[in-house]
Amino acid sequence: MKRIYLDYGATTPVEKKVLKAMLPYFSEKYGNAMSLHSFGREANEAVEKARKRTADFFGAKPEEIIFTSGATESNNLVIKGVLKALRASDLRLLEPHRSIKKPHIITTAFEHHCVLDACKSAEKKGLAEITFVKPNKEGLIEVEDIEKAIKPNTILVSIMYVNNEIGTVQPIGEIGKLIKKATKLKKLIFHTDATQAINYFDCDVNKLGVDLLSMSAHKIYGPKGIGALYVRKGTPIVKVQDGGDQEFSKRAGTHNVPGIVGLGEAIFLLKNKESRIKNKEILELRNYLIKKVLKEIPDARLNGFKKFRSPNNANFIFKNIEGESLILMLDKEGIAASTGSACSTGSLQPSHVLLSIGLKPEEAHGSLRLTLGKYTTKKDIEITVNKLKKIIFSLRKISGKVLDDYYLNKS
Amino acid sequence: MKRIYLDYGATTPVEKKVLKAMLPYFSEKYGNAMSLHSFGREANEAVEKARKRTADFFGAKPEEIIFTSGATESNNLVIKGVLKALRASDLRLLEPHRSIKKPHIITTAFEHHCVLDACKSAEKKGLAEITFVKPNKEGLIEVEDIEKAIKPNTILVSIMYVNNEIGTVQPIGEIGKLIKKATKLKKLIFHTDATQAINYFDCDVNKLGVDLLSMSAHKIYGPKGIGALYVRKGTPIVKVQDGGDQEFSKRAGTHNVPGIVGLGEAIFLLKNKESRIKNKEILELRNYLIKKVLKEIPDARLNGFKKFRSPNNANFIFKNIEGESLILMLDKEGIAASTGSACSTGSLQPSHVLLSIGLKPEEAHGSLRLTLGKYTTKKDIEITVNKLKKIIFSLRKISGKVLDDYYLNKS
Repeated sequence: MKRIYLDYGATTPVEKKVLKAMLPYFSEKYGNAMSLHSFGREANEAVEKARKRTADFFGAKPEEIIFTSGATESNNLVIKGVLKALRASDLRLLEPHRSIKKPHIITTAFEHHCVLDACKSAEKKGLAEITFVKPNKEGLIEVEDIEKAIKPNTILVSIMYVNNEIGTVQPIGEIGKLIKKATKLKKLIFHTDATQAINYFDCDVNKLGVDLLSMSAHKIYGPKGIGALYVRKGTPIVKVQDGGDQEFSKRAGTHNVPGIVGLGEAIFLLKNKESRIKNKEILELRNYLIKKVLKEIPDARLNGFKKFRSPNNANFIFKNIEGESLILMLDKEGIAASTGSACSTGSLQPSHVLLSIGLKPEEAHGSLRLTLGKYTTKKDIEITVNKLKKIIFSLRKISGKVLDDYYLNKS
Repeated sequence: MKRIYLDYGATTPVEKKVLKAMLPYFSEKYGNAMSLHSFGREANEAVEKARKRTADFFGAKPEEIIFTSGATESNNLVIKGVLKALRASDLRLLEPHRSIKKPHIITTAFEHHCVLDACKSAEKKGLAEITFVKPNKEGLIEVEDIEKAIKPNTILVSIMYVNNEIGTVQPIGEIGKLIKKATKLKKLIFHTDATQAINYFDCDVNKLGVDLLSMSAHKIYGPKGIGALYVRKGTPIVKVQDGGDQEFSKRAGTHNVPGIVGLGEAIFLLKNKESRIKNKEILELRNYLIKKVLKEIPDARLNGFKKFRSPNNANFIFKNIEGESLILMLDKEGIAASTGSACSTGSLQPSHVLLSIGLKPEEAHGSLRLTLGKYTTKKDIEITVNKLKKIIFSLRKISGKVLDDYYLNKS
């Protein structure tokens, strides 16, 4: 059975050119990038080339890029590293904040768990006060809600660029302008988790007005286990992983040289004309998918605004259908889909993203996320919708039967 | 010029079999190991196979192995995760410690910077009291010094198995017995950073009596960017990297599937008979190297006890020679060596390891670490010693000339 992969939001295959670029750094050019000798220098050159490419993509300077093990680490570094810098008494940059007893962070109710949990953990420790701004019913954060949330002790605003479950695109640029205005009075740090945005949206940090930006290579046809954090020069942030002096003393640990090379190559390829054409095709296929599902399957609904949305994302709920059963039955037909974030698999909690946009818990259990990618074909979409239709009809028949039996037994 | 690599302590090339095992997981079996579908399951199966292999190597259970991005992360997780667990009020396991106002950690003065800095950071925050036990002049930790350091509020003892600079092997098994005895009165957690030990020494966690053990794949002919932490069942430790529920909720972030597969394969290969024969050869070559250097180069000294020492490590000081110049001149001859830890490259501080065993700061600046590996040949050693001899003679001639000029000008 030919399998169909519609879970590019969870992870992507490594592009062949990316793997090719990585290969020499495993067994041939294997030096530690911190070593002074020729093996070390050739590893270091590769790391710096990747750093330059990454910086170029974001319109940043190479020394503003920190390599991490992935977006989860980058996001943890943001929340914890900024708070730690604030507490560090020797950080002159932060003088204006010294009088603040408890710093305030603004984030959203539908961030990835790594941001949410890092914030909740800081709140629990008494290190910060957190405001979780709710998106509207379309899955969009309103700029004025951020404006209203700013307080005298606000030091950090962290808002994801594209939501990982429903794909809605947040007005990062507009919020950036707001932050810039607010910063005239006091220094406000603006962070965006751009993990799901890099493939499709402009991530120029100056256009966006962000001070910090997180990403992961495995969402952009690069390898797993490597990510980056853009840190605007002068942003108060200190390392949370202690040890060696790697990454401008902002992240300790031996450089993952092949991973870094892979990230650099993957991000470099995104600037290709081919990538832009491919993205247009993905958008067309995704629109076709949404149209076909909503037309052919009764009681289906799209979660999140259709317009401001990642071109590869579709997220549905189907009345009386439980998401996990749907995933398992699609899998039996060779179709890979998800209910939401792969990081939360196995959790019995309904999606916090869907709850945040106003779905009821029983609805939030019933979602199907289909995320397309560069290898998705029209035929994949046609097969998927046909199989999906059949599965939903049969599941509804069973659940109808179960309900009938229930009422029969009751009567 | 054929290059000679004598810096296996900094990192190792990825073994061909290891790379071969990893390759399918980049572009073919690329699923997210947390995904429910077939792509996710095949990734998860690979992760679990690697976990089993890693557990087997340590005589542990698979559910006691946590994959991290490397030993630096593992060591950070130990220090911070244990302290965090202690503070977590809902952790019943820790009831006996509840009354302790400030927990006490025992470590050594010559640990890797990631342990030292994590401890110092906890001390600075007022979260713990730390005792840094000094090794003796031979570079060995005395069991009785650990015994003396135990206090009523001691909760964690963290001692490296093999020192990364001078290669001395610490009596982990004996300290394990001591801890076991002390634990009859109160629970003491015992951690060892075994990063430099895995290739050569028995790492059975039950024989060693450790509750936590850190490692990195890139020191054992596996890939960079992946490591593991053994966590004995019941050991109080909570995650420090917040986010998804990966790794038994002890480490968030998408699994680095190819990296994990590589770690599993690398550790599996260490059990081969070939590896044991190779280790014997390395020991013989290393002994030949030490003998030749001490015999042929005047005013040369070996740092650290020769007997209880990693078979691949030699660490010298040469009178009136500055370490970094030596490394750079060896590099010009195609020989890769180091002064100490690659993580501290560029640091102007003298080696804390050499200071801890009683060297003067000016001596501690002059060290040369040569670490052998499975691809080292007798010819490599012969060439290296010959070149080294010439370089040292010429450097001494220059420094002698400089000193002569100095005295001439003075007089």
